[in-house]
Amino acid sequence: MLAGDAIGKEFVVTCFGESHGRCVGVVVDGCPAGLPLSERDIQEEVDKRIPLKPEIVSARREKDIVEVLSGIFNGFTTSAPICTLVWNKEAAPGEYDQVKDTPRPGHADYPARIKYGGFTDYRGGGRFSGRMTVAFVMAGAIAKKLLGLFGVEVLAYAIEIGKVKVEKKLKLEEIRSNTYKCAVRCPDLERAKAMEESILKAKSEGDSVGGVVECVALKVPVGVGEPIFDSLDADIAKMLFAVPAVKEVEFGAGFKAAQLRGSENNDAYAIRGGKTVTLTNNAGGVLGGISSGMPIVVRAAIKPTPSISKEQRSVDLSRMEETLIRVRGRHDPCIVPKAVPVIESVVAMVLADHMLRAGVIPKVLREEK
Amino acid sequence: MLAGDAIGKEFVVTCFGESHGRCVGVVVDGCPAGLPLSERDIQEEVDKRIPLKPEIVSARREKDIVEVLSGIFNGFTTSAPICTLVWNKEAAPGEYDQVKDTPRPGHADYPARIKYGGFTDYRGGGRFSGRMTVAFVMAGAIAKKLLGLFGVEVLAYAIEIGKVKVEKKLKLEEIRSNTYKCAVRCPDLERAKAMEESILKAKSEGDSVGGVVECVALKVPVGVGEPIFDSLDADIAKMLFAVPAVKEVEFGAGFKAAQLRGSENNDAYAIRGGKTVTLTNNAGGVLGGISSGMPIVVRAAIKPTPSISKEQRSVDLSRMEETLIRVRGRHDPCIVPKAVPVIESVVAMVLADHMLRAGVIPKVLREEK
Amino acid sequence: MLAGDAIGKEFVVTCFGESHGRCVGVVVDGCPAGLPLSERDIQEEVDKRIPLKPEIVSARREKDIVEVLSGIFNGFTTSAPICTLVWNKEAAPGEYDQVKDTPRPGHADYPARIKYGGFTDYRGGGRFSGRMTVAFVMAGAIAKKLLGLFGVEVLAYAIEIGKVKVEKKLKLEEIRSNTYKCAVRCPDLERAKAMEESILKAKSEGDSVGGVVECVALKVPVGVGEPIFDSLDADIAKMLFAVPAVKEVEFGAGFKAAQLRGSENNDAYAIRGGKTVTLTNNAGGVLGGISSGMPIVVRAAIKPTPSISKEQRSVDLSRMEETLIRVRGRHDPCIVPKAVPVIESVVAMVLADHMLRAGVIPKVLREEK
Amino acid sequence: MLAGDAIGKEFVVTCFGESHGRCVGVVVDGCPAGLPLSERDIQEEVDKRIPLKPEIVSARREKDIVEVLSGIFNGFTTSAPICTLVWNKEAAPGEYDQVKDTPRPGHADYPARIKYGGFTDYRGGGRFSGRMTVAFVMAGAIAKKLLGLFGVEVLAYAIEIGKVKVEKKLKLEEIRSNTYKCAVRCPDLERAKAMEESILKAKSEGDSVGGVVECVALKVPVGVGEPIFDSLDADIAKMLFAVPAVKEVEFGAGFKAAQLRGSENNDAYAIRGGKTVTLTNNAGGVLGGISSGMPIVVRAAIKPTPSISKEQRSVDLSRMEETLIRVRGRHDPCIVPKAVPVIESVVAMVLADHMLRAGVIPKVLREEK
Repeated sequence: MLAGDAIGKEFVVTCFGESHGRCVGVVVDGCPAGLPLSERDIQEEVDKRIPLKPEIVSARREKDIVEVLSGIFNGFTTSAPICTLVWNKEAAPGEYDQVKDTPRPGHADYPARIKYGGFTDYRGGGRFSGRMTVAFVMAGAIAKKLLGLFGVEVLAYAIEIGKVKVEKKLKLEEIRSNTYKCAVRCPDLERAKAMEESILKAKSEGDSVGGVVECVALKVPVGVGEPIFDSLDADIAKMLFAVPAVKEVEFGAGFKAAQLRGSENNDAYAIRGGKTVTLTNNAGGVLGGISSGMPIVVRAAIKPTPSISKEQRSVDLSRMEETLIRVRGRHDPCIVPKAVPVIESVVAMVLADHMLRAGVIPKVLREEK
Repeated sequence: MLAGDAIGKEFVVTCFGESHGRCVGVVVDGCPAGLPLSERDIQEEVDKRIPLKPEIVSARREKDIVEVLSGIFNGFTTSAPICTLVWNKEAAPGEYDQVKDTPRPGHADYPARIKYGGFTDYRGGGRFSGRMTVAFVMAGAIAKKLLGLFGVEVLAYAIEIGKVKVEKKLKLEEIRSNTYKCAVRCPDLERAKAMEESILKAKSEGDSVGGVVECVALKVPVGVGEPIFDSLDADIAKMLFAVPAVKEVEFGAGFKAAQLRGSENNDAYAIRGGKTVTLTNNAGGVLGGISSGMPIVVRAAIKPTPSISKEQRSVDLSRMEETLIRVRGRHDPCIVPKAVPVIESVVAMVLADHMLRAGVIPKVLREEK
Repeated sequence: MLAGDAIGKEFVVTCFGESHGRCVGVVVDGCPAGLPLSERDIQEEVDKRIPLKPEIVSARREKDIVEVLSGIFNGFTTSAPICTLVWNKEAAPGEYDQVKDTPRPGHADYPARIKYGGFTDYRGGGRFSGRMTVAFVMAGAIAKKLLGLFGVEVLAYAIEIGKVKVEKKLKLEEIRSNTYKCAVRCPDLERAKAMEESILKAKSEGDSVGGVVECVALKVPVGVGEPIFDSLDADIAKMLFAVPAVKEVEFGAGFKAAQLRGSENNDAYAIRGGKTVTLTNNAGGVLGGISSGMPIVVRAAIKPTPSISKEQRSVDLSRMEETLIRVRGRHDPCIVPKAVPVIESVVAMVLADHMLRAGVIPKVLREEK
Repeated sequence: MLAGDAIGKEFVVTCFGESHGRCVGVVVDGCPAGLPLSERDIQEEVDKRIPLKPEIVSARREKDIVEVLSGIFNGFTTSAPICTLVWNKEAAPGEYDQVKDTPRPGHADYPARIKYGGFTDYRGGGRFSGRMTVAFVMAGAIAKKLLGLFGVEVLAYAIEIGKVKVEKKLKLEEIRSNTYKCAVRCPDLERAKAMEESILKAKSEGDSVGGVVECVALKVPVGVGEPIFDSLDADIAKMLFAVPAVKEVEFGAGFKAAQLRGSENNDAYAIRGGKTVTLTNNAGGVLGGISSGMPIVVRAAIKPTPSISKEQRSVDLSRMEETLIRVRGRHDPCIVPKAVPVIESVVAMVLADHMLRAGVIPKVLREEK
């Protein structure tokens, strides 16, 4: 537990693998027995990382093929740990020798080298690579399947890329139908075009752009999340900051709440359809760390890809000399599109964990007959 | 561990108590043996929550007197759990009966009631009250003492209150000398006046304001934080969201990073004084979840106090009828000033935990002779 | 969590305090909301540690008065952490200066000194003292109350002291009615007399005796315990070895199983009263780490009290010279009687934890109306 | 963490796989960076499970080939999680259909079925199978390699099988050289013959025998283990009870300590070669839960294999009728020989974990140059 490669208290996810090692994998422990689950369920989520337009991401990779090694029997989970992985096929370790002594700005190369006394697998960032998020998506696929049984839906989508923002209020139907049809994973297809242009322009200049991903979770019942430390927002925020490149997280009104009056920011209660609801949702669905029954709304700001082909200043650590570095290899000029299914996945992981913790999801899903 | 009242893996903090119960307390487990520590060390930090100008906070409370029940022997920690608490003196439970059935907008009353089937201690928010942060400050006091031995300094301060922002670049000396001399805990004494006015104006209108607290941690060595899930920023973010009223957290360039190009946002490496440094600090001192050796810089946006004296819409849950509520009792028109030492404390807690985890702080601090 | 002062995953128990510090206390986190609980419930269990005949234990101590500091509201648990403690009244620290440099054989003095670099609170063994088991009993009292709601009963009793063994098969009624009426906590009142004599004889010779405590847990439902590591027997065994002086733990046929044939040791299944049962219970109620529905049967062997008044060989660690030590202070010539309620308590703690983990006990106990 | 498939706090071991699924694997997280490690190191330990004389175990299995999927780079650990597995080749699921509804006495079939509502992978015991201990041995191999760097040696060996006991005092050299040369893993080659006969006799009668394994850990430094709950003996005991078929665990004098006087059982201190030692080791190397610097000595009693070919009474759970069962398939008439390397492994795992926790093993093993 100390090492930080595992997370969750009931729905426990342990990651392993490296960007240019044999595989990237994950063990999901604590999934209740009786969930119908197949490799295809997981494959479908992993496929969401495949870009629709290769030109806006890095050179096209081979499709990752999901294998499940344990935990499923006769089409159902058994409550035993589910190990699932993808094998690395395109590993090209040779091209990363440069990185060994000269850390790439914006990457973890430098602190990792110091921390591990030179034993780090530095190839393509090793375990610090964005590729590790395939593991998050595999775990998230299981979480989403489980949440689905309880009516909970998690939807992420880009709302800003390279200074281009979605200004209009997105409709749920738009989000559901457009996100994964759109190359930049933005449900506002108008703005999506401008986003795409912004990415291509940065790419043509050897540069990169960032953006913002929003995620909503619908039908989370009231009472999910624990007081004091393991609050629902705290655990979602933690998981989001575990996604490489996230630099900011906010719920509901977010940083703008700081500029509102209490009377503006408080969400008034009312009764609608026999149920207690709030008339606004500045809280983003979380009060005192516990779900309020309103949609969970969270946003994460994603920095521009640190790997750019422009020359940058760095240091040759073996000689302790300043030097210049031009990062070779395949770069994504913008990682926001790939981050969308990842953020969907990690929010689902936290919700699955907390719904189990709250007792809302039972330990065994009795077989329907 | 499931319940969420404990946090940390080496420096483990467990909170107990309620706003209007007997006490608010904390058990700190995992503090190395050999740290010089006294009740006075903790008292000094708890005293930082006392407002300099009572008019900008709630009606003045009696001073909280810290008692240490265990874990210190002959002036040093022994590595045994340190239990420390303050007794509640001003508890006035009667005045909260109103809250029992009618949840206050912006508070946890409603989800807590649903979650715990009516068994919650609702008096003054019970364990959801901001008063619980006294426990965070007591634990933070121990963390800060420990960090101090290793040269690490943690400084928090208000940079925005009620739309009034600090615009100038704050100097370290200003922060160190001004923060706790200033009623609103803002080192920019000019802006502090405007902040104060903003608070008093809101108060006079029965309303409240929010703000932003910034926190820097200096001299954190390179290599603190764990890859994948328990990254330093993820754990700091989690702890900050555990502070009531925090709705947004960002590191370094934060949400603005989303609008920068990679070439602008990346922090270039250079050598200064024989050491590897970055020329900018957009990363806020964390790369790949691990400290880079640059200052940790984090900001938290704090919503306006939900308790306002203006009338608000709510629901009588026992009758399932819409109703109006006017929250009685003592309100802070702005909790930012009180949040400053709390944020300082929780960041210190996470740093102590991670410096222990990284092996930077040993398990026993050998006695100097 | 690293420090080892907390245990349990849903019913989490964190101990604090020292033998001659201010208090001995415990925080119980994860107890479901809605359990009727009072200080008296806990006091009654703590009182079971009071010897009926002072001559067979150490000089009579003042009664420990239980105080509950948090987690109970209107007579019910709220799910908030329950902190409960007893203040130390008879602390006589002065008499332990001898121990500072000269470790008592059979105690933790020596390894504790080395481990903590001399910062240990050595007075009366500090946190290694048997007095810490008051905390176990307080936590166990809550666990037993909780288990009782679900029909589970935990009964411990001495079956061997100072070579005197219970030979006959004890009836449940005998156990329930005799144990706490008997000074040595043995339900076989015949053998109890011989046990008592054995203790008094050892005492008169400045020596001590050990014994064996058996514990049965009745009506634990089938399916409690987790496969692989957190098996029910593994967690019970761990907790029992956490009780000072326990040197051996066995379930069911225990060490004798090693000498049986498979055909003798296997418990055959049958149907009785419409339920699946086993005709024997050599397994002690646990199969593959999971409860079988039969009574849990476990035994713990307890070493003779290490504190004896006979002179013993030791080492003056400050001078690194061999020396002799005669342990002063109040000794129990046999700790088995005091261990009985402690073992009952820790078994109850583990069962409460695992019944919560198995989902057999819900997170909120809905109020009966 | 809740699910129980992971153990350890710094050296964290997570198991996955099933007896007749695709593989049996393990993720070891928290192994320090810089440990020289290869697949061969792990293979050598896994090979110790291969019987020297097939007739005393079940029908010969194919050799398990170890594959390492992550965490090693250039021949050294990197601190990233190490995933290692063996693929199941001889899975013959069909032959286990019988077990689906009729639980085998002495196995986990019955409680597992109830616990998981019929979703369990029952083939060959699924995740309850003794085959899962291959995972323990793979993790133990890494632990042993790590301990070896710090001079710690762990040795397990049979001391009793089928009522045949080793009576003489075993010499260290005998243990080291004989154990793995002997088919029953007993260093006393005389008694080993009688043990073997005892096994063959039981086998010829369609029955099975149990035994006792002793394990010593040499050169564990003073101060390893945590007070209160995570004591060294408590954690070793827990791990041993996680090994299928263990029914009793004892340290040092063990259950016999209960019959000694304090003056007999206490281990007196003396100085030998400038070091503090004890003249006897009834404590088995652990005092107050912390290592004393003397050898750790622990014994585990192992029940006779529950799978026997004799007819046994059971219940058809689908019809709720009593029935007879004759367990088909490959049986070990005695699992003690296979348990020896497993027990060595799990003791090593706990020691690695606790030596890391105590700070005795650092987080990074600096490269020697």
